[in-house]
Amino acid sequence: MRIRILWPGRTKTAAVRALEDFYLKRLAGLLPCEIVVTEASRGLDEKETEKILEIEARGLEKRLKDDYIVCLSDKGREMNSEDFGRFIEKRAVSGTKSLAFVVGGFLGLAPRILDRADLRMSLSKMTLSHELCRAVLLEQIYRGASLMKGRSYAK
Amino acid sequence: MRIRILWPGRTKTAAVRALEDFYLKRLAGLLPCEIVVTEASRGLDEKETEKILEIEARGLEKRLKDDYIVCLSDKGREMNSEDFGRFIEKRAVSGTKSLAFVVGGFLGLAPRILDRADLRMSLSKMTLSHELCRAVLLEQIYRGASLMKGRSYAK
Repeated sequence: MRIRILWPGRTKTAAVRALEDFYLKRLAGLLPCEIVVTEASRGLDEKETEKILEIEARGLEKRLKDDYIVCLSDKGREMNSEDFGRFIEKRAVSGTKSLAFVVGGFLGLAPRILDRADLRMSLSKMTLSHELCRAVLLEQIYRGASLMKGRSYAK
Repeated sequence: MRIRILWPGRTKTAAVRALEDFYLKRLAGLLPCEIVVTEASRGLDEKETEKILEIEARGLEKRLKDDYIVCLSDKGREMNSEDFGRFIEKRAVSGTKSLAFVVGGFLGLAPRILDRADLRMSLSKMTLSHELCRAVLLEQIYRGASLMKGRSYAK
């Protein structure tokens, strides 16, 4: 199984980018993840929500194929880390070829992207900035992958 | 009201430290926070949980005075960001002089520190690394402070 993580636009905050790299490097030996940066809107006023979400949705759609899709959403299901680790493991053993996590931009995701999700999940009851979400998601995938590895070692 | 954030030992992961600085700089103009790095155990095996927690507890006790104490704990109360912002605002207007957030080390906090808490809170159902918790807590305080500022602007 390959894991792809899609988000519109490059992460702007240098410290968050550094943290993403930190987890990606650690993941490389366990469960390689590919980051797919999709099209972000440019030069639009923040109030033009629909236009921005539309541009981002089209960018995401170009890169989503036959994946099992997990969208991050504040209205999604909250899991603890063990359940999340088990979820990834279950996808891996049940023949999912590509598991795609989709993290929206600062306005979230267009309804039609959310509708396409096989699972909507929330990282916290708290609202995290969309950039911080990227780093926290990577930490959770790393934690899940470590649990999987630990379990297979123990067997 | 002043806000102090206490944790044992310097943050080791450079990218997390950079992210802490990022939020601390933004907070400086809104609601200044002081980070208090307390004593961390050294040279002890990870299995010596009680000894490590005892050393860290003593370090924290030296720096906790007459504060309103919030301990981060995975069994604590989950709040959304608005409730958290309102909580900070309420402490500020109700005369709390010092609001102290306590974040444990990789083994968490000793029971007697948790017992001293006026509030135990959890950032997420997911287990975040104790270092990542530091950055997420700062982001939430920044978010809360921005909400407070936004409200007072609107008045």
